[in-house]
Amino acid sequence: MRSESFAPPAIPAFDDEAASAAQARQDALAKPPGSLGRLEDLAVAIAGLTGKRRPTVSSPTVVVAAADHGVVDRGVSAYPPDVTRAMLGAFAREEAAVSAIADVVGADVVVVDAGVDGDPVGSPEGAASVVDERVGRGTADLAADPAMTRPDAVAALEAGVRTARTKLADADLVALGEMGIGNTTAAAAMTAAVTGADPARVTGSGTGVGAEGRARKVAVVERALGRADLAAPGARDPVAVLRHVGGYELGLLAGVALGCAADRTPVVVDGVVSGAAALLADALAGAVRPYLLPSHAGAEPGHAIQLGALDLDPLFDHDLRLGEGSGAALAIATYRAACATHDRMATLADLTAADRTTDG
Amino acid sequence: MRSESFAPPAIPAFDDEAASAAQARQDALAKPPGSLGRLEDLAVAIAGLTGKRRPTVSSPTVVVAAADHGVVDRGVSAYPPDVTRAMLGAFAREEAAVSAIADVVGADVVVVDAGVDGDPVGSPEGAASVVDERVGRGTADLAADPAMTRPDAVAALEAGVRTARTKLADADLVALGEMGIGNTTAAAAMTAAVTGADPARVTGSGTGVGAEGRARKVAVVERALGRADLAAPGARDPVAVLRHVGGYELGLLAGVALGCAADRTPVVVDGVVSGAAALLADALAGAVRPYLLPSHAGAEPGHAIQLGALDLDPLFDHDLRLGEGSGAALAIATYRAACATHDRMATLADLTAADRTTDG
Repeated sequence: MRSESFAPPAIPAFDDEAASAAQARQDALAKPPGSLGRLEDLAVAIAGLTGKRRPTVSSPTVVVAAADHGVVDRGVSAYPPDVTRAMLGAFAREEAAVSAIADVVGADVVVVDAGVDGDPVGSPEGAASVVDERVGRGTADLAADPAMTRPDAVAALEAGVRTARTKLADADLVALGEMGIGNTTAAAAMTAAVTGADPARVTGSGTGVGAEGRARKVAVVERALGRADLAAPGARDPVAVLRHVGGYELGLLAGVALGCAADRTPVVVDGVVSGAAALLADALAGAVRPYLLPSHAGAEPGHAIQLGALDLDPLFDHDLRLGEGSGAALAIATYRAACATHDRMATLADLTAADRTTDG
Repeated sequence: MRSESFAPPAIPAFDDEAASAAQARQDALAKPPGSLGRLEDLAVAIAGLTGKRRPTVSSPTVVVAAADHGVVDRGVSAYPPDVTRAMLGAFAREEAAVSAIADVVGADVVVVDAGVDGDPVGSPEGAASVVDERVGRGTADLAADPAMTRPDAVAALEAGVRTARTKLADADLVALGEMGIGNTTAAAAMTAAVTGADPARVTGSGTGVGAEGRARKVAVVERALGRADLAAPGARDPVAVLRHVGGYELGLLAGVALGCAADRTPVVVDGVVSGAAALLADALAGAVRPYLLPSHAGAEPGHAIQLGALDLDPLFDHDLRLGEGSGAALAIATYRAACATHDRMATLADLTAADRTTDG
């Protein structure tokens, strides 16, 4: 039976002792102090999150959650809704952008069907399995009605926590990815609802709808917020935000972030859709905040507002606007490099000892 | 016998046809056009450089060249000169920052002794071999005398071309790295000589010498340029610049860039030292320019001037100032991701075909 309320899992606090020990190690490594710049800060942060003085990123995973959105009937995307299903197949066959990038950075990809329209996608022949966490067959049109029922919103969040604690249990870094034609509209509405930002400031061109399409998206977001009375600060019950203007994959990714944080696994945020999920997770349980790590500065205007609200300083800006977790997957290389240098470099004391051995 | 003049190898022109074909492929891939942002541009550029419509980066290599600098006697570094030799051992034993980062991005490391002080380092027991391209036992003090003879400057450049065409012959992307206590002073002097920039603008704190040490470095650079009359525009014979104010590893890396470009291998520039080598290569043979690819925006002030002069837009800014090729090595992940998405992603036509198969 589906519940009306969501109880986030308990999230451990940042481990200051592990972080201090990691900082001491950084200062002892064979390099001018601070010369690895931000990589040093990232390694120290991951030490505090994981509670390990010498953390490693040896089994990073990109989770890609897909779902459909009833709002597509309002012309908010340049693509028809059946592209969601087609791309789910491409993820399973490892033919998508995120498949290639994950391979480069040594990451696994876990593909989740959170509620694609039609029958279950299942696992295409000869392809990787798609995790079935289907909350429904696509959401309702959020401009006219709540996108989903409240029990379904709770179910999406719980599916995410479950995914984190089963399919992602062995991951030591998780990157958030998504696919869903129409989901930048839901993400914009969620961002406006959670941050109080003006819909026009958080709504972009998504797949590339042009000025007219973007105006339609802004109008849809305004209408959805007005209908649900979510624009007013104070009316921001996170589960209600997800119910009224969200999407199944958005709820699932918020749950993944919470579940990972509960297990001390850092979570890398991607673009504007995973950013909306991160905002939702943060609204549900502020203790998740330090576990949310940045990747890129995306091309969608709402992304900068999300990053500001979450206090995330992006690692790079490649003008990406694909989603799929493509930017977060690429950022895995930076986190791996930060932890690998931290763990593997010789200390100045090691170097001196090695010199003595050679001389002797 | 060492020569008085250097003849750069012939460098093929950018292949516009391969680049156009690559752009057409980008536009056919299963994604909104342009949504991979800069990754698309990088893949198209590498297609034009390599002449391959679907280029791959499957055997990237970081070359780390080390040498000593007589100018260290003037207090321009926070470290004693024997650290150069100690670090050469750390590279060979894979205990340095660049070793760890190269491992993360799937790159090999080739370590070259271009002229460390004392006896040849050789190959430490149980460690990777160090390539012996020793031009001398460290340079002379560039503030007082030419850093090296003209034949030695030519020999350093030729050693780089040879390294590219032998040790790096199988690499499909080469990242430039270096080690040499005192070499940010030589790099600053070379940058001022080649670009005409004011010494105070291109000279930084290097390993971390503080304001007083930096003032000493600026004075040393001004004195070296005045002595050699290299500050005057028009007096910029590149071999003379290397001879008067350069270093063996700087000449060797410039030669590597030229040799790689001659073989259509793109070259990733790292921080302020490899940037000076890249400027020198560009001054020797302007045809190398498109083969020089950016990595990070370094913390040293001269780096931005170098990147501007070479028209390189950095991929990220992690406030790195370690050298070793650490930033260039990390950027390999981005180039691999750009080529892997370009090569491996399904096209929209593939997706439609896959859908038909599934439905049928």
